[in-house]
Amino acid sequence: MADDRKLPTRADDFSAWYNELVLRAELADYSPVRGCMVIRPPGYGIWERMQRALDDMFKETGHQNAYFPLFIPESFLRKEAQHVEGFAPETAVVTIGGGKVLDEPLVVRPTSETIIYAMFAKWVQSYRDLPILMNQWANVVRWEMRTRLFLRTLEFLWQEGHTAHATHDEAETEARQMLGIYRKFMEEWVAMPVVTGQKSDSERFAGALRTYSCEAMMQDNKALQAGTSHNLGQNFAKAFDLTFQTESGETAHAWNTSWGVSTRLIGGLVMTHGDDVGLRVPPRLAPIELVIVPIYKTDAERARVIEVAQGVRAALSGPGSGVPIRTHVDVREHLKPGAKYYDWELRGVPIRMELGPRDLDREQAVIVRRDTREKQPVPLATIGEAVRGLLTRIQGDMFAAARERREAHSVREPVTYDRFREIMEGEGAFVYAGWCGGAECEAQVKTDTKATIRVLPDPEFRSPEAPTRCLRCDQPVKSEALWARAY
Amino acid sequence: MADDRKLPTRADDFSAWYNELVLRAELADYSPVRGCMVIRPPGYGIWERMQRALDDMFKETGHQNAYFPLFIPESFLRKEAQHVEGFAPETAVVTIGGGKVLDEPLVVRPTSETIIYAMFAKWVQSYRDLPILMNQWANVVRWEMRTRLFLRTLEFLWQEGHTAHATHDEAETEARQMLGIYRKFMEEWVAMPVVTGQKSDSERFAGALRTYSCEAMMQDNKALQAGTSHNLGQNFAKAFDLTFQTESGETAHAWNTSWGVSTRLIGGLVMTHGDDVGLRVPPRLAPIELVIVPIYKTDAERARVIEVAQGVRAALSGPGSGVPIRTHVDVREHLKPGAKYYDWELRGVPIRMELGPRDLDREQAVIVRRDTREKQPVPLATIGEAVRGLLTRIQGDMFAAARERREAHSVREPVTYDRFREIMEGEGAFVYAGWCGGAECEAQVKTDTKATIRVLPDPEFRSPEAPTRCLRCDQPVKSEALWARAY
Repeated sequence: MADDRKLPTRADDFSAWYNELVLRAELADYSPVRGCMVIRPPGYGIWERMQRALDDMFKETGHQNAYFPLFIPESFLRKEAQHVEGFAPETAVVTIGGGKVLDEPLVVRPTSETIIYAMFAKWVQSYRDLPILMNQWANVVRWEMRTRLFLRTLEFLWQEGHTAHATHDEAETEARQMLGIYRKFMEEWVAMPVVTGQKSDSERFAGALRTYSCEAMMQDNKALQAGTSHNLGQNFAKAFDLTFQTESGETAHAWNTSWGVSTRLIGGLVMTHGDDVGLRVPPRLAPIELVIVPIYKTDAERARVIEVAQGVRAALSGPGSGVPIRTHVDVREHLKPGAKYYDWELRGVPIRMELGPRDLDREQAVIVRRDTREKQPVPLATIGEAVRGLLTRIQGDMFAAARERREAHSVREPVTYDRFREIMEGEGAFVYAGWCGGAECEAQVKTDTKATIRVLPDPEFRSPEAPTRCLRCDQPVKSEALWARAY
Repeated sequence: MADDRKLPTRADDFSAWYNELVLRAELADYSPVRGCMVIRPPGYGIWERMQRALDDMFKETGHQNAYFPLFIPESFLRKEAQHVEGFAPETAVVTIGGGKVLDEPLVVRPTSETIIYAMFAKWVQSYRDLPILMNQWANVVRWEMRTRLFLRTLEFLWQEGHTAHATHDEAETEARQMLGIYRKFMEEWVAMPVVTGQKSDSERFAGALRTYSCEAMMQDNKALQAGTSHNLGQNFAKAFDLTFQTESGETAHAWNTSWGVSTRLIGGLVMTHGDDVGLRVPPRLAPIELVIVPIYKTDAERARVIEVAQGVRAALSGPGSGVPIRTHVDVREHLKPGAKYYDWELRGVPIRMELGPRDLDREQAVIVRRDTREKQPVPLATIGEAVRGLLTRIQGDMFAAARERREAHSVREPVTYDRFREIMEGEGAFVYAGWCGGAECEAQVKTDTKATIRVLPDPEFRSPEAPTRCLRCDQPVKSEALWARAY
């Protein structure tokens, strides 16, 4: 059973609230290995639903899953100059195997571009072998010094898509398509609005031509980079001799893309939707959508109420009942209903159904939304319809609430640099402002305020009136930029 | 497109046939890292279907998925004496992280008992917290010297179930239940018959009280250990202080089980069902169940045939068509129908449909079973029914054929030790014979013949007339044993 001390509040200490909530809702736990977490069943259940939804979208767009080795020869990492610079400092290295020191150390993959494009080079001869559209679900390791459950861990789970194309434009279309799929998933499944756009050079993936990103606002007004998609150009194709014969018989290097999202999304879900009572899980990702809590005093009442509860569960979750609803009946005997309500609110189950003898007399049940905590009686005769409708409404309302929250904390009117610093040192925001395109301005803003350029937003996210001057140096702008502190 | 040289035959060189088939059907490929393979989409597609089927069965029996760290502190492995002896020699060890030498080296998990039971110890206080029924899908690493694609690789994918119970009997029931689930999966999905039973002490999992196994016969008459389930007793609970308060208020150690199957099953599928033409994939595990090859000479014919083919595909694989059939239309223009047949036979798709203008005139298609290569015309009007029925028949026939093959190569009549050696040095077999229970006899048989005790078979697999004398020493038997050479 869950710990029944009060959670820290978001307002008092957002970071303590987050950690405590993740632990108490049993999403994850610390492990004996520094920086590595254990994902517990309630957290892994969310991840499984994320995987299923994304995997379906990847397959609908022609991608196939494969699996590449965990270990990468150290020399592979060195073949792409920017890539090694970006990843070598944070690798875990196997130096001993089967009791012997290895001739060449093996790096535990921090990402798999190098080993995957080495294999693509083996498989691709002609333009007929292109495009290759692959994805793998895997664990990766990055030796981080400061870790946070889900947000930044030494080992994490993710998917990494890797593709090879005959032309730059095809690769660009692919990188953009996958960014769009991520956005759709984050909006429609995680109920988490995102701003999409291109990263500045300093935040680009090590080895990429262009990096695109989905950026979400957490409830402390900081940004979370929730997914990225890279047009890798021919950088890796050149490093790994990934060439093909074109239709006209010439030899050309292929164009690659890679794209990934990770278990970090679970952290994003928590920080987007959680409240001071606990988690709120969007229905489409909830391992349990409806929990039924039986209320009774006597053994006879218990038998009667639980029988009806099991009947409701069977009717809602069985086949032939329309879309099955993931339903759980909480029959624990050593807990009172109030303790059960508390427990399920902490865990964020979207709808609770309370069912007691008086409800049965009236042929009704009381259902309670987790997101708004509204209660309403519902006739048992039409319970499936009512629950299904409410789940859809909750999913939509959660997205709308998160978007409204983000807009309320977005600054689009022109601000002076002093005002900008004040905002960043205060409660934070997504600030849309001009950027001269200079790396120095970008670096100076970071030093002054800890804020960075999250993205150069895509057209639909840009301000109606384009900024004309750089936020910091007041020179003419090159692009509008979204500035914020970030995880 | 697949290589069009002839495969080696099973009779000529079973091992070369296996390797070539795995490579040419694109199930897997060698990687640049010694002993690590790449699982390519056609192989991974089979694994995904295996995962889905097993995962459903695990969940139906109350298990939940979780995820534990890849890295295990070296000291953890040492806490259970037999366990460290079994696994320490074959570990990969991370000694450097983030550019620094680690204080305590980290072992890449060869299996996760130690880290998982350390976590269980943290989570379990009272009998109310039991049983814990968990599973994880993960990669593991064992530093093997001689590797074979799928059968024995440095890294492999598997699931490992881990449970904790209040009593020995509950753990025993669980270990037995999971063995039953494995058997059901292997018979009904892989169409691969297995003999179940208990391992002898010498073949027991390092740290277990009892190990149960499913043993399948490959077409070279060698055994493949296809899945194991262990009653771990209290060995790990004692090593990791996994205790709980009983209902009567005492402190007791929990009882654990663990059980796993791996990507090795794909090797088992190949060696059970493949023939000299290529793979034969049982329909329930086939990523593509039906491939449609359009036949045409002119552009007009092509348009007409492909339109009908796409219509058939839509009708068979769409929603509302009963159980959807995984259907693919092979529209490649640079290949003739014959080359396509060859390709799909190599890849083992259960049914091929040939569709040409003359077929359309007769409102029929020709369907060809991959397992028996029988051809039959089928009216297009009832194609769904015909294909569905045939897929079910193929699944059943493949299992029956494999079981018949195994029985034809099982020896149940009493054999002298000389005859036994002759069999093992000849074409091999599953030999059911007596065992005195002595480790010396077991070891001597292995030295003499390379055969080992695969299992002490469960009652239903034992011979009608129980053997009375040990195969080797002629002393009175302790148990009947299944002897065979093994992978």
